[in-house]
Amino acid sequence: MTAISNGKILALSGGVGGAKLARGLAEVLAPAQLNIVVNTADDFDYWGLRICPDLDSVMYALADRNDTVRGWGLQNESWRTLDAMGNLGAENWFQLGDLDLATHLFRSQRLREGQTLTQITEGLCKSMNVPARLLPMTEQAVATQVHCSEGQLGFQEYFVRERCAPVVKSLEFAGVESAKPTAAILATLADPDLRGIILCPSNPFLSIDPIFAVPGMLPAIIESQVPVIAVSPIVAGLAVKGPAAKLMQELNMPVSADQVARYYQQRYPGLLQGFIIDTSDAQLASEFDTLGLAVKVRPTLMTDIASKAELAEQCLGFLNELAN
Amino acid sequence: MTAISNGKILALSGGVGGAKLARGLAEVLAPAQLNIVVNTADDFDYWGLRICPDLDSVMYALADRNDTVRGWGLQNESWRTLDAMGNLGAENWFQLGDLDLATHLFRSQRLREGQTLTQITEGLCKSMNVPARLLPMTEQAVATQVHCSEGQLGFQEYFVRERCAPVVKSLEFAGVESAKPTAAILATLADPDLRGIILCPSNPFLSIDPIFAVPGMLPAIIESQVPVIAVSPIVAGLAVKGPAAKLMQELNMPVSADQVARYYQQRYPGLLQGFIIDTSDAQLASEFDTLGLAVKVRPTLMTDIASKAELAEQCLGFLNELAN
Repeated sequence: MTAISNGKILALSGGVGGAKLARGLAEVLAPAQLNIVVNTADDFDYWGLRICPDLDSVMYALADRNDTVRGWGLQNESWRTLDAMGNLGAENWFQLGDLDLATHLFRSQRLREGQTLTQITEGLCKSMNVPARLLPMTEQAVATQVHCSEGQLGFQEYFVRERCAPVVKSLEFAGVESAKPTAAILATLADPDLRGIILCPSNPFLSIDPIFAVPGMLPAIIESQVPVIAVSPIVAGLAVKGPAAKLMQELNMPVSADQVARYYQQRYPGLLQGFIIDTSDAQLASEFDTLGLAVKVRPTLMTDIASKAELAEQCLGFLNELAN
Repeated sequence: MTAISNGKILALSGGVGGAKLARGLAEVLAPAQLNIVVNTADDFDYWGLRICPDLDSVMYALADRNDTVRGWGLQNESWRTLDAMGNLGAENWFQLGDLDLATHLFRSQRLREGQTLTQITEGLCKSMNVPARLLPMTEQAVATQVHCSEGQLGFQEYFVRERCAPVVKSLEFAGVESAKPTAAILATLADPDLRGIILCPSNPFLSIDPIFAVPGMLPAIIESQVPVIAVSPIVAGLAVKGPAAKLMQELNMPVSADQVARYYQQRYPGLLQGFIIDTSDAQLASEFDTLGLAVKVRPTLMTDIASKAELAEQCLGFLNELAN
């Protein structure tokens, strides 16, 4: 790790799935080395509050406060305000816990006061002792719209309220044409200490695509001239977490790790240099020659802190190899 | 009660103290008969939410959900979000409970959507089965400012954060010159079924004065030509609740029930016809002749639902007498 030990890493992440690798990276890197660009296209307004599900998932995971049994939200959570809101006839399909609510209240008040999402996220992370720098992909509001057989749904309506049941025809990142990468992200990408970029095993369509859809993001990443690798979110033809596999089927793609790589290569030519697939997908390794990508076959199912740290080490090692 | 039984009553109230009589009135009147104008000059913004302490105190008391041991807020309350906000470094001197928080979230969201405070209060009261109509004194923001030896404090800063410790020099109802009585209040005052008006035993300076300070409120009340009575908030030289007695001292007034009547008579000539003082203040009854006010001496310490209802009956009887 000598090349990395003095440098910085940028990870791109959605929510819970990507947060596992982010947590592993935080285990093997110093806080000043780890920068994580987080998707904000899932953000929405609810109860008059600004909710940033992916930022919060990564933040809670890195603070070791995420509930791993429920799979989202905070440990030791309670739901008293939610129940009271239901009694008042307010919407309650999105479950905001009493502890989680503090995050949204804190953020919403400061957004109204004119602070940027980047500044607010920095403050929240400091209070929660998050050992990394979390960077919202943009300060501007972007809202993933899911076009499906039933019509158009906001992302959280599709994801939470409808439990991903509707068949997806296409996705739209409303507002993204007016968005810009944040100054903090551009500065990180221009930092001579940057050593590599990792696409976490997040949903390519819902978590990674919105980040690259921000005008200027992809050119800035490519111009950084550091190695870029991805970890497959598809293992043995299944999504480890969330609707990635179902979406691939609905978008008429074979559900496989190499197909994710193919998708990235076609959509973002020249972006990736390496790809990590799970040991259960070892037979797919030969596919990557034709894709022009280096490939590593490694255990990618991060079930505990040791396996998260191990995959993080593998990512850093891969970036080192690609840099030489 | 025959004259009242077919008519409507308007009560003017601050928070917890006035809410006791309001609760008694709700016990002896049908919901359609009881209208309660509530002070909103204590309202303030906190955590980006609009907090209306007096409206909530009256609403919770009328829903039988107020915590009578703590003396404010809801029964069965918890403080998980408050604790989490403290951990984030947010202000936590004003204690918002998890159940109470739902009220503020519900109200704040709807205010931002453009609903009036009157409409929102009606919705909250319906959800909580409040058997009366609660009428915020105005839709416009009014903010009591406490000028004291330490400088100027917002009302809740004085009342909650500083626990009424600063010596008050004067009070100011900032914004009141631009406020108007609500359409619902003016319609109630013009209703031919209106039979009488009761000033609840609330703080004259902090709860009742702001209501009368709304331009147009006092003339509309006097033009209604129904009897107006008040119940003394001072009993045996002490304030039953809150800083009324301390304020009277600081404003160089004798602390006594007749002094409250004298204050109202001087400040709002022609408003009052009757005044109810506590049995412990019976020796003060003769003072009211010189003030030109009818007086009743009755038990006014409302310690349970029976004594609240009994005082409410006494008020209605007094209004009946004055109408004849």
